[in-house]
Amino acid sequence: MDLVFSNCTVLTNDRENVVLTECDVGVNDGVITELGRSNSRNQPQRLVDASDLLIMPGLINSHTHSPENFSKGRAESVTLGPWLDQIWPALDALEPRQIYIAALLGAAEMLHTGTISVVDHFRQTPMNLAAVDAVAEGYRDSGMRAVVAVMLRDIPQFKGQLLPSVTDQIDIVEQAHLNCDTLKCSKVRVALGPSAPTRCTENLLISARDLALRHGLFLHTHIDETSTDAAEARKRYGTSSVQHLANLELLTPFLSLAHGVWLSSEDFELLASSGSTVVHNPVSNMRLGSGIAPLTALREHGVSVALGSDGAASNDGQDMFEALKAAVLLQRVAGVETKYWITAKEALPLVTSTPARVFGFGTGQITIGAPADFIAINRSGYSFTPQNDWHRQLVFGGNGLKVRYAVVAGKLLLDDERITTFDEENILAEAREIGMRIYTKPGDHVV
Amino acid sequence: MDLVFSNCTVLTNDRENVVLTECDVGVNDGVITELGRSNSRNQPQRLVDASDLLIMPGLINSHTHSPENFSKGRAESVTLGPWLDQIWPALDALEPRQIYIAALLGAAEMLHTGTISVVDHFRQTPMNLAAVDAVAEGYRDSGMRAVVAVMLRDIPQFKGQLLPSVTDQIDIVEQAHLNCDTLKCSKVRVALGPSAPTRCTENLLISARDLALRHGLFLHTHIDETSTDAAEARKRYGTSSVQHLANLELLTPFLSLAHGVWLSSEDFELLASSGSTVVHNPVSNMRLGSGIAPLTALREHGVSVALGSDGAASNDGQDMFEALKAAVLLQRVAGVETKYWITAKEALPLVTSTPARVFGFGTGQITIGAPADFIAINRSGYSFTPQNDWHRQLVFGGNGLKVRYAVVAGKLLLDDERITTFDEENILAEAREIGMRIYTKPGDHVV
Repeated sequence: MDLVFSNCTVLTNDRENVVLTECDVGVNDGVITELGRSNSRNQPQRLVDASDLLIMPGLINSHTHSPENFSKGRAESVTLGPWLDQIWPALDALEPRQIYIAALLGAAEMLHTGTISVVDHFRQTPMNLAAVDAVAEGYRDSGMRAVVAVMLRDIPQFKGQLLPSVTDQIDIVEQAHLNCDTLKCSKVRVALGPSAPTRCTENLLISARDLALRHGLFLHTHIDETSTDAAEARKRYGTSSVQHLANLELLTPFLSLAHGVWLSSEDFELLASSGSTVVHNPVSNMRLGSGIAPLTALREHGVSVALGSDGAASNDGQDMFEALKAAVLLQRVAGVETKYWITAKEALPLVTSTPARVFGFGTGQITIGAPADFIAINRSGYSFTPQNDWHRQLVFGGNGLKVRYAVVAGKLLLDDERITTFDEENILAEAREIGMRIYTKPGDHVV
Repeated sequence: MDLVFSNCTVLTNDRENVVLTECDVGVNDGVITELGRSNSRNQPQRLVDASDLLIMPGLINSHTHSPENFSKGRAESVTLGPWLDQIWPALDALEPRQIYIAALLGAAEMLHTGTISVVDHFRQTPMNLAAVDAVAEGYRDSGMRAVVAVMLRDIPQFKGQLLPSVTDQIDIVEQAHLNCDTLKCSKVRVALGPSAPTRCTENLLISARDLALRHGLFLHTHIDETSTDAAEARKRYGTSSVQHLANLELLTPFLSLAHGVWLSSEDFELLASSGSTVVHNPVSNMRLGSGIAPLTALREHGVSVALGSDGAASNDGQDMFEALKAAVLLQRVAGVETKYWITAKEALPLVTSTPARVFGFGTGQITIGAPADFIAINRSGYSFTPQNDWHRQLVFGGNGLKVRYAVVAGKLLLDDERITTFDEENILAEAREIGMRIYTKPGDHVV
């Protein structure tokens, strides 16, 4: 046995939502092999006394942008349009080393706050292979599971902006996917990340779809984040953004769509029947005044929903317990009837089993034979004192929790609050230097 | 010199919002006596190397209910009316020791998350002197500054509920105020806390006002938390709740009003001209689906505004950095125009200098001669990496920060993340026992 957490309380998040107590969790070869009162067994390589810990699936952040980790607190009082103009010029052409550091900076924050897997909708302009390789390497070195959804766009955002051709962009993704395989790290995968329907030609969207089919890659895109986005799509296609994607045969279970604040009930039907997933980013939507996404209506229509933090320039924190609480509470001031309020028990899958399924991680539950991907939290802290309901106290009071242990594929990434896979202090120090450099170039927007 | 933090970054929160760097903060006799590069001086009794710390005023939580610290995560999917029915029967008659523990349980969470002063709108039914003395003693032992606003109510909430007479309730507050003086603790004060205009007769409100005038005590009440509350007042008085209080001459700078979600613009004028303060509780308002308080409009009308967590049964966390972020962001999805969005710099006073003034703490700024009430935060953590703007990174990213040091009146209450004034583990252990006891009584609502 490689690793045993002994005498834990376990939130299995399985189908019956079983909570186990005084339970040993044993891990071998990256998989959970024991769950219950252990009988005699050989001494494991590592034994953690977990009598004061709650073990649960690690959280999954289904939408962020790692370069923004350098831009916390910037572009304060603006909506998405001007925000893009203020944030991205300084971030759009980072050097590979800077990209690598940005990924680890985000990884540090996520690991401490319980997130062990991430979908990074990774943007650089112009997109290039070295950049994608660098971010993939960052996640590989963090030990997290990651999907690097390479942002594609062939309609320029700024005047004179240079964008690679559609063929070149598709080639970058294909090559990055192959390189990622050669990293010998099954935990990091490359995906196709069209920026948004309105920022891509049909040619690009179709080419992305075809490459996804060819290699079995996921697709990830923004959708109707602002009312302007939604109106622009209607103007351009005479249909909604979602209908446009449906017409191009992109709506599949392998597509996830970030935001969806301005979706219509026709869109709900299309999304539900196609099995595509909407990724709700409540804190970012508040920060940019984008609106309140119809989380409850999406779920009532049977649409698959996951949660994201969004990038650190529109959230400023990457804590998925915060996003979880915000998602549950925000609906309650959006005119949703009490009987439709999402409960804590219903909400936890949005950051665990749902994205685990959607992004093929195979995680999200603590069961025998599942990948050993979990976190351990001090269960006698004030959030759980006195204890009455783990789900509610986690969802309504988990905000700001500092996690004790994080395990991915059987490996301890966080060991008694210390990151094991990289030198956190050095990464933070280098990130500070990079921050100074990228925001002092002449002509940069420093907002 | 009693205490020196050397070589800090200091967010003074003074009128010019000066940020000092490489600054020593010296404390003597409970007051800040040195601020800047120190010259030669005698060795202080305690020297803290603060070269990696950010010092700022400690936060003030202007509205909570300490007995609810036993009820985290309860009454999940209900609005205020049924929530009251589900939460309070189990909490309304705690023993003095239980009340004492509840206060310290809240104090532990607040100190770790940066809050060093609190307004506890303290409820027990029937209200009694032993209960008020117990909560005051809890805060005295925590070392925090506290205002215990004794909840008064002479219109029963439940059938057959026993309430002391108006005279008896007023006597309890007067005696508690005198007892508090004998505690020889100027940091804990008693105030009059009418539950809400509609839960009190005119006789009670006038009697409370008169006692407040006689002893110079503060008044604190709920106001228009739900649309039902606001409608009930109109029905009963033919005026708004605020106008009713104005008619009874309760609107003064010594009155603070919690919630105000359903105030009208006429109310704004009355509040602004009277100098009364509205305490916004954004997270609780979301949790109970009460609505979004008109924070921006209140401020535009010149109304004094502070922030509260509200009790742990309607917030589940008592982290004022969370409340601060929620307050700033929630306005942005409430139809407020971009130009009126509250900035981080404008928001910080809502949890520092404004309530410090309103509740007479005299704190909220780091200046020579001010009470030595401040917190120290690790300034090289991921929230501040890379660093660009302290205010924004604190307000948008401070959520969940674990504070290193907390100082009140010159005394270290939190020393390198450890509470110095009480044994936190013992308090949490006793709170767990109490939780089991109070929620297993026959006939109790366990929701």
